[in-house]
Amino acid sequence: MSADFFADIPTIQFQGTDATDELAYRYYDKNRMVLGKRMEDHLRFAICFWHSFCWPGSDVFGGGTFNRPWHAGANDSAAAAAKRAAAFSLFEKLDVPFYTFHDIDVMAEANDVADHRRLFAEAVDDLERLQSAHGRKLLWGTANLFSHPRYAAGAATSPDPEVFAWAAMQVRDAIEATHRLGGANYVLWGGREGYDTILNTDLGQELDHFGRFLSMVVEHKHKIGFTGAILIEPKPHEPTKHQYDFDTATVYGFLKRYGLEDEVRVNIEANHATLSGHTFEHEIAMSRALGVFGSIDANRGDPQNGWDTDQFPNSVEELTLAMIEILRAGGFTTGGFNFDAKVRRQSMEPIDLFHGHVGAIDVVARGLLRAAAIIEDGRLDAFVADRYAGWNGPVGQSVAGPAATLESAADYAIAKAFTPKARSGRQEMLENLINRF
Amino acid sequence: MSADFFADIPTIQFQGTDATDELAYRYYDKNRMVLGKRMEDHLRFAICFWHSFCWPGSDVFGGGTFNRPWHAGANDSAAAAAKRAAAFSLFEKLDVPFYTFHDIDVMAEANDVADHRRLFAEAVDDLERLQSAHGRKLLWGTANLFSHPRYAAGAATSPDPEVFAWAAMQVRDAIEATHRLGGANYVLWGGREGYDTILNTDLGQELDHFGRFLSMVVEHKHKIGFTGAILIEPKPHEPTKHQYDFDTATVYGFLKRYGLEDEVRVNIEANHATLSGHTFEHEIAMSRALGVFGSIDANRGDPQNGWDTDQFPNSVEELTLAMIEILRAGGFTTGGFNFDAKVRRQSMEPIDLFHGHVGAIDVVARGLLRAAAIIEDGRLDAFVADRYAGWNGPVGQSVAGPAATLESAADYAIAKAFTPKARSGRQEMLENLINRF
Amino acid sequence: MSADFFADIPTIQFQGTDATDELAYRYYDKNRMVLGKRMEDHLRFAICFWHSFCWPGSDVFGGGTFNRPWHAGANDSAAAAAKRAAAFSLFEKLDVPFYTFHDIDVMAEANDVADHRRLFAEAVDDLERLQSAHGRKLLWGTANLFSHPRYAAGAATSPDPEVFAWAAMQVRDAIEATHRLGGANYVLWGGREGYDTILNTDLGQELDHFGRFLSMVVEHKHKIGFTGAILIEPKPHEPTKHQYDFDTATVYGFLKRYGLEDEVRVNIEANHATLSGHTFEHEIAMSRALGVFGSIDANRGDPQNGWDTDQFPNSVEELTLAMIEILRAGGFTTGGFNFDAKVRRQSMEPIDLFHGHVGAIDVVARGLLRAAAIIEDGRLDAFVADRYAGWNGPVGQSVAGPAATLESAADYAIAKAFTPKARSGRQEMLENLINRF
Amino acid sequence: MSADFFADIPTIQFQGTDATDELAYRYYDKNRMVLGKRMEDHLRFAICFWHSFCWPGSDVFGGGTFNRPWHAGANDSAAAAAKRAAAFSLFEKLDVPFYTFHDIDVMAEANDVADHRRLFAEAVDDLERLQSAHGRKLLWGTANLFSHPRYAAGAATSPDPEVFAWAAMQVRDAIEATHRLGGANYVLWGGREGYDTILNTDLGQELDHFGRFLSMVVEHKHKIGFTGAILIEPKPHEPTKHQYDFDTATVYGFLKRYGLEDEVRVNIEANHATLSGHTFEHEIAMSRALGVFGSIDANRGDPQNGWDTDQFPNSVEELTLAMIEILRAGGFTTGGFNFDAKVRRQSMEPIDLFHGHVGAIDVVARGLLRAAAIIEDGRLDAFVADRYAGWNGPVGQSVAGPAATLESAADYAIAKAFTPKARSGRQEMLENLINRF
Repeated sequence: MSADFFADIPTIQFQGTDATDELAYRYYDKNRMVLGKRMEDHLRFAICFWHSFCWPGSDVFGGGTFNRPWHAGANDSAAAAAKRAAAFSLFEKLDVPFYTFHDIDVMAEANDVADHRRLFAEAVDDLERLQSAHGRKLLWGTANLFSHPRYAAGAATSPDPEVFAWAAMQVRDAIEATHRLGGANYVLWGGREGYDTILNTDLGQELDHFGRFLSMVVEHKHKIGFTGAILIEPKPHEPTKHQYDFDTATVYGFLKRYGLEDEVRVNIEANHATLSGHTFEHEIAMSRALGVFGSIDANRGDPQNGWDTDQFPNSVEELTLAMIEILRAGGFTTGGFNFDAKVRRQSMEPIDLFHGHVGAIDVVARGLLRAAAIIEDGRLDAFVADRYAGWNGPVGQSVAGPAATLESAADYAIAKAFTPKARSGRQEMLENLINRF
Repeated sequence: MSADFFADIPTIQFQGTDATDELAYRYYDKNRMVLGKRMEDHLRFAICFWHSFCWPGSDVFGGGTFNRPWHAGANDSAAAAAKRAAAFSLFEKLDVPFYTFHDIDVMAEANDVADHRRLFAEAVDDLERLQSAHGRKLLWGTANLFSHPRYAAGAATSPDPEVFAWAAMQVRDAIEATHRLGGANYVLWGGREGYDTILNTDLGQELDHFGRFLSMVVEHKHKIGFTGAILIEPKPHEPTKHQYDFDTATVYGFLKRYGLEDEVRVNIEANHATLSGHTFEHEIAMSRALGVFGSIDANRGDPQNGWDTDQFPNSVEELTLAMIEILRAGGFTTGGFNFDAKVRRQSMEPIDLFHGHVGAIDVVARGLLRAAAIIEDGRLDAFVADRYAGWNGPVGQSVAGPAATLESAADYAIAKAFTPKARSGRQEMLENLINRF
Repeated sequence: MSADFFADIPTIQFQGTDATDELAYRYYDKNRMVLGKRMEDHLRFAICFWHSFCWPGSDVFGGGTFNRPWHAGANDSAAAAAKRAAAFSLFEKLDVPFYTFHDIDVMAEANDVADHRRLFAEAVDDLERLQSAHGRKLLWGTANLFSHPRYAAGAATSPDPEVFAWAAMQVRDAIEATHRLGGANYVLWGGREGYDTILNTDLGQELDHFGRFLSMVVEHKHKIGFTGAILIEPKPHEPTKHQYDFDTATVYGFLKRYGLEDEVRVNIEANHATLSGHTFEHEIAMSRALGVFGSIDANRGDPQNGWDTDQFPNSVEELTLAMIEILRAGGFTTGGFNFDAKVRRQSMEPIDLFHGHVGAIDVVARGLLRAAAIIEDGRLDAFVADRYAGWNGPVGQSVAGPAATLESAADYAIAKAFTPKARSGRQEMLENLINRF
Repeated sequence: MSADFFADIPTIQFQGTDATDELAYRYYDKNRMVLGKRMEDHLRFAICFWHSFCWPGSDVFGGGTFNRPWHAGANDSAAAAAKRAAAFSLFEKLDVPFYTFHDIDVMAEANDVADHRRLFAEAVDDLERLQSAHGRKLLWGTANLFSHPRYAAGAATSPDPEVFAWAAMQVRDAIEATHRLGGANYVLWGGREGYDTILNTDLGQELDHFGRFLSMVVEHKHKIGFTGAILIEPKPHEPTKHQYDFDTATVYGFLKRYGLEDEVRVNIEANHATLSGHTFEHEIAMSRALGVFGSIDANRGDPQNGWDTDQFPNSVEELTLAMIEILRAGGFTTGGFNFDAKVRRQSMEPIDLFHGHVGAIDVVARGLLRAAAIIEDGRLDAFVADRYAGWNGPVGQSVAGPAATLESAADYAIAKAFTPKARSGRQEMLENLINRF
C-alpha cells in the first residue's frame, strides 16, 4: 500500500469566493473571527472513520464499489494500519482538527474477547502516534455495539446478560482509550437498543437495563477521571423497528427517569432528526431548552426516502437555521461538527471523499456566517422577544407568576372581560428576513 | 326538531355471531365475563360529542355534508339543546355507558367571558339531567383551547398572557363541571400547544408556561377534591407543525421536568400514535413501562395518508395487540375506550353513525376476547419470560446487579471468555401464534 | 367597504439588493434580461383568488382568523364584488401580470343551476372590467368541482351521472369565461376524483368516466376556438385517500389511455409533488421527458407534515433546481408561476399577504438568476452530456441502435469480454458546483 | 454438507384448525375446492431463492447472522450446489409447487462473461434435475442486474452502453433458461433503473434506453417461442432515490409510451405498493383496470418504517382485500403468489424459515377463503353495482354516452334544474360487512 493513499491530492486551502479550483475552501477560513471566535473554534469539524474508511460502498441491494486497498483482503492488522494511515492523511489534507471512531473501525477483526482487547490496544497505540504526527485531535470515541451478530437483539438491552457483559467490556476499553487519546467526548449510539417486534419484547425491562448500563458508564467515567462529556445519539428506528433513543425529548425523559440528566447530553444527527419527524434545528432548540445540547453529527437525509441516507450536508439554508440555534445555545463546549456522512455508492473515487467534505465544510461555514449576521443584526431576536413581552409585565405575573393559581388566572379573565387581541405571527416576514442574509 | 333524532333506529342488542341484522352486536355482550370481569367493565366505552355531533362533515376542501338540524342555523341555545338530546339518544341506543365532551361542543356559541360561563353552565345543567334520564356517565370532560381564533398561537403556550388567562377560565369551569358531573377523568389535548414556525418561537419559554399551566390544573384538581385522573393526549403535529406533546415518551419527560409524573397520565389515541411513528400497541406498552397509562381514544388512521383521519377502528388484528398491552397494564382504572372517530364525509345519514359505532364496538370486543385467550393460553408470555430468564439468574446479577460496575461486568466477559450464543427471536413463530386465536 | 382594501400599502418596486424596505423587490426586476428574455416573460407570475381572498384562515381544528370585510356576512354579490376589487388591487400593487380563479371564488354563493350561471356571468363581466382597469391578465380559469357537498363522491367520477352533468355545466361556463377573458390556459384539478374507500368503488369505471369527461372538455375547447392549453394538476391524495391524478407519470399514462397526450399538459404543484414521493424538480423533468410540461403552481410543503400545507416558496436552493428544469424545457409557453400559496393562519393582517408574495417572488427570481447562470456556465450540462457520450458512439449504436437485438447486444458483450469501467457519478462535486452560484 | 439440510424437519401437512403442531397447515388444504378451483391452483405459491437462501441475515448496520453452510466460504460451485439442494428440500417439505430465482442466486460467483455463462449453465442443468427429482416448477426466472458494482448506475439505464450489453447477455441467458425450465413467466425488476441524483441524470434518455431494452426482451421472447408472460415489478425507490417503475400506473404509462402494453404485465409486491403510497389492493385493482395484472410478490412492510422490510405477510385482513381484487381479476393465469419475504435477522435458525412460510401460506389461504365467501355472498358486489346503476340508465347515456358532448351534458343539467341527491357511501357499513366473514 502506498505511503500516502491520497498522494495525488494537495492539501485544501482557503482561497476565498473567487477560487477557481474545485477543491478549495471558499468560505471556511479557520482563522477568521466570527462573533469573537475563530471559525475553527466555532465549528470544531471532525471526520468519521466509519463513513469514509470502513464502509465499502455497499447497500442492501449490492456489494461494495470502493475497493480501497484495505477492503481487498481480510481486515487484518496490516489492512487496519493502512486504513488508519489513509484516514489521517485525509484529516490533515482537509485541515480538519478532529476525528471520531468506533472501536472496530480502527482495528483488525477480532474473534474473541482477548483478541478484541489486544487488537484494539494495538490500534489505539497507533492512533496516539498518528494524532501527534498529523496534529489531529479526537472529538469522540465510541464502541460499535450493533454490527456483530452477537448484538442482533441489542447490547445493553439484549435479553442475554452475557451480551451485556461483552458490551461492558467493549465500552470500558473504548472509553479508556478515548480518555487516553484526549477525546473531548464519549458517544453512545444505541444501534440496536430497541426492538424488531414488540411480541417478543419486555420493553420495561429493556429500558431498565439500558438505564443501568448508562449509569455504569457514567460512574466509570468519573472513576477514571475522564472529564469529557457522555453523549447519546438519538435515532427513531433503523435497523430496528423502534429505537429507544427516538429523539431528543425521549432521551431527556430517559435521562430524568434514571437520574442522569446532569451527566449526559445529546449528539444530534440531522438525518436522525428528520427520520423522527422533526427538523434538524428543532432538535437543537429542544436540546438547548432541556439543557442537554452536546454535539452534532452533520449530514442530511432525503425527504423522499424513509431511511438514513447520510448524505453530506449541502443546504446553506438548512445549516443557517441550525447554526442560529447552536449560537443561541452558546456554541459548542466539548462538542463539534462531525461529518457522519457518506459519499454516494457511485462516488467511488478517492477524490470524491474530498468533494464531499470540502463542499460540506463550506456549507456549514456559510451557515455560520449567515447565522452570525442574523444574530448581529438583531431583528429576529428582537421580534421574538417582543412577541413574548407580555410575560415580563404585570399581566404575565398576574396569570402565571409564583403566586398565581388556576383560580386567580381565571378570575383575571373574568374581571377584565377582555378579548385577546389577534397579532400576526409574521411567519412570511421572518422567512423573508432570513433569506436576505 | 324531533323528540328523538334517532326515532327510526332501534336500540342495539347483543345477538351473537349468527345475527342477521346489520345493526346488532355480534361479539360485545356486556355481561359476558372475560378474565373475571364483565366486558362492559373491561372496555368502558365512551362516545365523543365532537366527532359525532359537532363536526358537520366538512374538510379543508369542502363544506359540511351532514346537515343535522342543529347545524342548520346559528349555534344558539335551542340548537345546543337539540344536539345534546340527540347525543344522549345515541348513547342510550348504542348502550354505551360513557360519553366525553369539550366545553364548546355542548353549548351555544359565546361571544365573551360572561357569555361563555353562562351558556356553559346552562349546558352542564342539562347534561346532568340527561345523564340521569338516560343512565349514562361521563368518562371525561375537557375544554376546547384550540378552535377559537384567540388560540391561533396556542393557549397555555400563547405568547399573550391574556390568552393563558382565558384558557385558565375555560379549564376551571370545565374541570369543575367534570367534577360535578361525576366524570372519571379530565383531559388536556394541547391542540395548538406547539409552533407553526420555530422562527417566531421561544420554545423553552413556551414549555415552561405549559408546565406552569399544568401544575395549576393539578393543584386546582386537589383543591376542589376532584379524584379523577388528569390526562394528557399526545399528538405529534397537526394543525401545528410541531406539537409539544409529541408522543408518550415525550409527555413523560415533560411531566418529569415539571415534577408531575405522579399526577398526570396519558390518553393515547391510535391515529396520533401512528402519526408519531409508533404503533398503537407501542404507545400503550410505553405508557405502562413509564407508569403513566391512562385512557384510550379509539380510532384508526390511514397508513397512506399523513394526517389524522380519525376513522373508526376496524382491524381486529390491531386491536388484539392493543388489548394485550392494556390487559398487561392491568386494564383501565379511570380510563376507557372513547371513540374519537368520525364517520366519513360521504356517510352523511344518521344511520351511518350506528354503523360506525356498532362495527367498532364489535372490533374492540373481538380484540379483547382474542387478547384474553392469548393471555390465558400463556405461551406468548412464557416465551417472553423465558427469553429474559438469564437476567434472573446469577449472570444477570453478576453483570448488572446492585453491586455491578462497568469494570465488574467487563471483567466477567474477560474471565469467562465466552461467545454469546445466538438465539432466535422467533418473530414469525409468535406472529403465527397470535394469528391462531 | 373601503374603495381600496390595501390603501395603506404602496405599490411594490424593484429596489435592488440594497433595499431597506421590508416590502421591495430585491431580485425581481421585471425588465431585466435573462438568457435573452425579460424576467417578467420568463416567470409569468400569477396570484390565486382562492388562497389569498377566499380562504378565511380556518383549518380542520379551528375557524377563520382573517376577518376580511367580505368574510363578515353572506357571500352575496356585494361581498363578491368587494373581494374582486381587493384582489385586483393586490395584483396591481404587487405588479404581478396574471391571476387565476375557480368559478366559485369570484362569485356570490349560488343555490341552483340558474343561480350559478347568473351569478357567475355577473362576476365574469366584472373580471373583464377589472382586467382592463388594472392592466392584468388571466393565466387560467377553472371550475371548483370539489367543495360543494354534491361533489362529495367526485365530479366526473361520481357514481351519480347527474353530478357529472352539473360538473359539465360548470366547466362549460368556466372554460367559455376563460376564453372570453383571454385566459392562457384552462385547468382541471380533480379535487375528489379518486376514492375514500376501495370497498365501494369501481375504479375502472371511474377512470373511464374521467377519460370521457376530459375528452368532452378537449372537444369543446376546439369547438369554441379556445387556443389556450388544457392542464391537469396532479395530486396523490387529500382530501381523498387516493386521487387518480397521482403524479405526472400517472397523468401521462391516463392521457395515453384515452388518446389525449397531445391535447393536455400538466400543471405541477410543488407540494403535490412532494406528497407523491417526488421532488418538485423531478416532476418538471418528468413532464419534459414525456412532453407534457405545462405550468407551475408555486408553493412549498413541510417535509415533516403529511398534508398539503401550501406555504409560500422560500427556498432559493429548491427553486434553482426547478428553474434549471424549466429552462431546459424551453421555459413557459402558455404556463406561468402561479402562487398556489396561503399565508399562515396566524398571518392574519392584510400586509402579511404582501410579505408572502414579495418574498416568494424574490425567491423565484433568485432561482431563475442562479439557474440561468448555471446554464450559461455550461459545466453541469457538459458533465451530463459527457456521462452519456458512449451512447452517441459506435458502442451505443451497436448495442441499442435500430438494428440491435437482445442477441446482438449479448453477443457484443461475449465477443468483447470486457469489464465495464467504474466511473464516479460525481454527485458531491455537482452539488458543490450548484452551491457556488 | 448434509444430504438434507432440513433433515430434522418433517414435511408440512394440512391438519385443519384443530392442529396442535406449530408447523402444520390449518387453512391451506391444496385440494380443497374454492369457487370451483383447487386452492393450490388458485394460489400457485412460490418460494424465492434469494430471500430464503442467499441473504445471510445482514443489514446496513451489521453482518450476517444465519451462517448456513453455503455462506461459510466462497460462493463456489460446491456451495451453490448445496444451496440449490437445500432450497429444493424446503420447497418440497413445504409442498409449495413453484420457486423463483435470479440468475446469480443459483450459481457460483463469476468473474467475467465467460465465467458467468459457464457457471450459470451448470446451475441450470442442476435446477432441471432438481425440478424433476422434487416435482417442483418454476414460476419465474430473472436476472440480477443491480447487485454487482457494474450496475451501480443502472443496467438498461446505465450511462455506459457496455453495461447495457452485459445486461443483455445476462437477460438472454436467463430468459432462455427460464424457457428451458418451463417457467411460467419472466420478470424484470429494475433494481437500479432510476437515479441517485437528478443532477447527473438525463431522465428522458434513460427512459428511452429502458424502453428499448424492454422491446428487445419482448422481441427475443417471441423469437425463442417463450410463451410465458413478461412481468415488470414496480417499486418507487430504494436503493435509488427514484426508480422509473414507481408503481402500476407509472409502468402502464411507460408501456403505452413504448407500445408494449399488450406484451408486458406487472408483478405487484405488497411492500413496494405501500412504499409508493398505495395499498396492496389498490395496486391489484389498478392493474386489473388497466389490463396488466400479472403476478404477486407476497410480503408486507412496516407502516412505521420507510424502507422495504420484506416481512412475511401476516394479516388476514389485508390479504382478504387483496384476494377480492385477484378474484375479480379472474385469478392468476401465468402468475402466482411468490414469497418475496425474509425471516427477520434474529430468526437465524433453519426452522424459522418454516415458521415464516407456513404462517404466511395459511394467512393467504384464509384471505382466499374469506374473499371467496364475500364474493359468493354477493352483497359487496351488489352494493357497488347499485351505487353506479345510474350510469346504465338513460341519465348515464344522456350525459356521457357516445353522442354526448360537454354542451349536451351541461344543457341536461340546465334543463332538468335538479339538485343531485346526497347518497351515503356506506363506508362503515361495508367495513363491518367485510369483518363479518
